[in-house]
Amino acid sequence: MHPDPIRLLVHGASGRMGQAILRLLRDDARFAVAAVAARTPLAAGEAACLAPDALGDAPDFDLAIDFSLPEPFEAVLRLCRERRVPLVSGTTGISAAQQAALDTAALDIPVLWAPNFSLGVAVLEAVSRRVAAALPDWDCDIVEAHHTRKRDAPSGTALLLGAAVETGRGRGPAYASLRAGDIVGEHTVQFASTGERLELVHRATSRDIFAFGAIQAAARLAEQPPGRYGFAALMFPGLD
Amino acid sequence: MHPDPIRLLVHGASGRMGQAILRLLRDDARFAVAAVAARTPLAAGEAACLAPDALGDAPDFDLAIDFSLPEPFEAVLRLCRERRVPLVSGTTGISAAQQAALDTAALDIPVLWAPNFSLGVAVLEAVSRRVAAALPDWDCDIVEAHHTRKRDAPSGTALLLGAAVETGRGRGPAYASLRAGDIVGEHTVQFASTGERLELVHRATSRDIFAFGAIQAAARLAEQPPGRYGFAALMFPGLD
Amino acid sequence: MHPDPIRLLVHGASGRMGQAILRLLRDDARFAVAAVAARTPLAAGEAACLAPDALGDAPDFDLAIDFSLPEPFEAVLRLCRERRVPLVSGTTGISAAQQAALDTAALDIPVLWAPNFSLGVAVLEAVSRRVAAALPDWDCDIVEAHHTRKRDAPSGTALLLGAAVETGRGRGPAYASLRAGDIVGEHTVQFASTGERLELVHRATSRDIFAFGAIQAAARLAEQPPGRYGFAALMFPGLD
Amino acid sequence: MHPDPIRLLVHGASGRMGQAILRLLRDDARFAVAAVAARTPLAAGEAACLAPDALGDAPDFDLAIDFSLPEPFEAVLRLCRERRVPLVSGTTGISAAQQAALDTAALDIPVLWAPNFSLGVAVLEAVSRRVAAALPDWDCDIVEAHHTRKRDAPSGTALLLGAAVETGRGRGPAYASLRAGDIVGEHTVQFASTGERLELVHRATSRDIFAFGAIQAAARLAEQPPGRYGFAALMFPGLD
Repeated sequence: MHPDPIRLLVHGASGRMGQAILRLLRDDARFAVAAVAARTPLAAGEAACLAPDALGDAPDFDLAIDFSLPEPFEAVLRLCRERRVPLVSGTTGISAAQQAALDTAALDIPVLWAPNFSLGVAVLEAVSRRVAAALPDWDCDIVEAHHTRKRDAPSGTALLLGAAVETGRGRGPAYASLRAGDIVGEHTVQFASTGERLELVHRATSRDIFAFGAIQAAARLAEQPPGRYGFAALMFPGLD
Repeated sequence: MHPDPIRLLVHGASGRMGQAILRLLRDDARFAVAAVAARTPLAAGEAACLAPDALGDAPDFDLAIDFSLPEPFEAVLRLCRERRVPLVSGTTGISAAQQAALDTAALDIPVLWAPNFSLGVAVLEAVSRRVAAALPDWDCDIVEAHHTRKRDAPSGTALLLGAAVETGRGRGPAYASLRAGDIVGEHTVQFASTGERLELVHRATSRDIFAFGAIQAAARLAEQPPGRYGFAALMFPGLD
Repeated sequence: MHPDPIRLLVHGASGRMGQAILRLLRDDARFAVAAVAARTPLAAGEAACLAPDALGDAPDFDLAIDFSLPEPFEAVLRLCRERRVPLVSGTTGISAAQQAALDTAALDIPVLWAPNFSLGVAVLEAVSRRVAAALPDWDCDIVEAHHTRKRDAPSGTALLLGAAVETGRGRGPAYASLRAGDIVGEHTVQFASTGERLELVHRATSRDIFAFGAIQAAARLAEQPPGRYGFAALMFPGLD
Repeated sequence: MHPDPIRLLVHGASGRMGQAILRLLRDDARFAVAAVAARTPLAAGEAACLAPDALGDAPDFDLAIDFSLPEPFEAVLRLCRERRVPLVSGTTGISAAQQAALDTAALDIPVLWAPNFSLGVAVLEAVSRRVAAALPDWDCDIVEAHHTRKRDAPSGTALLLGAAVETGRGRGPAYASLRAGDIVGEHTVQFASTGERLELVHRATSRDIFAFGAIQAAARLAEQPPGRYGFAALMFPGLD
């Protein structure tokens, strides 16, 4: 017998990530969309569509997925805590105070916030830390390439990988950034010594991988006790 | 105060690997070459040069490094066991019976035999197994490139990496082999899913890395109790 | 003053390529879609939608773009010849007799048939031929990677590049094929000698590039006299 | 019947390049070393060894190869002009006045000066210019990687390739530089558009390729009339 599907609130449903998540959920029997919240009203099958200021009207749900903005993020966090349901959030630009609010909420509910939901990047992060620890004397460089509209450099993901390298060997890598074409995202962590080299490369060719990763994380988080969770550690406990 | 240098017997000293090891040892204060054994007599500083059939005349030594052929390999294994000293061997083409003899000797002395002494390959091997375990549903391919004189394909190192992948996820990868120019050795372990990919690449540009790795392994093996050791596990205990 | 837009017949409009072409044409003021022909009726703005067996009812048009099947391909070729308008076709699997029919039609109208409309691949093809001619003694390998649903190997594009290498230096390359994930298409033409190597890599991340290339070719072909044209030569006369 | 070997003066024979050239010449029947000039006297088979201030004592020779320093470079240029023999020079750091002296000498003798004698780099330079001309709207980046002792960035070769790109399309590329391990030299010229990319990569794994290229250039220059020659144009007339 199939278990009942997990009833979801998709918060930030009209954004690019929210739309991708709704699209992927259509073919995923593990979940049912109970409600969506969006700045602009949208059709979501049989699910209720809530305005951002009417979250309290949401029907029962088992878990919320949030890709919104720092202000509405606070509202969905509060709602999840009231309803005692887990929250998966990929909202970027949140403040230190909001991070602290996540920690506090984690006393009552399972909470997962991550800047990147790519499974491949999560594996690369864990692997980079281990390789850096194994080969602490090798030179390390991180090269990232993204589309020309990306303003910040190095990318947030490059800095995440660099932090993993620093954790592994006690000092960070050098960075190089390319902006070209419509590259979704490529990251190379290169370790070089005398006569040999290791290159660890991640290539993203679709933004759907981030929506896919958030959905996989939701399936796992739904079964956890209250606490603050990291994406890589939740998805790949053996790697960490 | 410096410890006394480890006194070495370098067995197979006139071969390409033996020569590279002797060259690198010249600048390595951790070791002193007590004797070399070679089919063709050679000058080795103050060290005695033994003919293959006169190994028993070797002066005292603390550890043997062997890169020879299957037949003389047996003699140096016997000598190490008699003298109760560790053996590091990279002799290729040894039989199942000779592998069993290594196991038996390991009851009395530390023994390390490996087909590849590259530190980078050892790290790649450990990492490939872990990535395969973390991403069991991703497609996996191994591409290797070597110089045109190399006859066997896939390379022994590719098969080693493939075995690591199989250990990690229960089934092996597909292989592709290129033979071009004077490429020392390149191995790519690629994991691919929908919308993203991980490429783990090792590039060797000098054969000295194998001699260097064997020397590092000797320094570690000299401090171990009797037993059979693997190169990756001995050099990178945290990775395994 | 803007010139009048080129009035197009899009033949094979319900297929994947036809759909991509119609989507890209929406934002391209150089063209107006006069009619589409499709097996399944479809809405195409103000353009007429013709059934395959009613091509003769097509209103006036200046050029046809065809991505269909070998049988309907013959009908659109006949129509273009009757109407004395150019034809751009990417229909695959056409026979030697149909290729000959293209040659005959080329006496009366400009005709361009190509198996691949990627601008990058066309440049790579021209460059590979020239590099092969400049470095005839270097080893040459072509490695291609595609999604797991692709059955044929090496890919048609790999064979196209291999033919360019053979034209350049008198003998073809070795091939290796990978099938992994949802890779749209990657081709590496590698030239290797002693101590150095050249790798020429094309990576496609979207199938829209083929539709885009076909549209660019249409804009050029519309200005040509009757004749048989090649995609690379038409788009990059200086490279050939 | 074999032609008589070309009698060479190797100038700067004690430097790293001079030594590599002498080593490669030992197996090259097209040449005979008539004399070497070196700051420190060295054995050169039957060839005379000249001190830098005694160049005038050189026996007859047919062509000079020079990898020295800006000051002795002037002396060998003067000698070649007096003797009416061609000069191949890879001396770096020469001034604008010395470049002008090369132009003047080229009225009387064949002269070839180049900052890089890799055949692969010469091909990459020609190809990069053509690709840039064919795809003027694509983004272009050059990434170079060298050993950690290299101080200047971007490398001279990267700037050479960038100049080729600029010649081709009217504006230069962006640059990124990595310094890691003992990498001899790697250069990637990347062109990126929407949905596709071309990467042109040169990997050098041995410095002998520069000596080899200089020797090949000498064989060609020996048959040319007076004039100033470029390495790429001399070796690959069809590519330019």
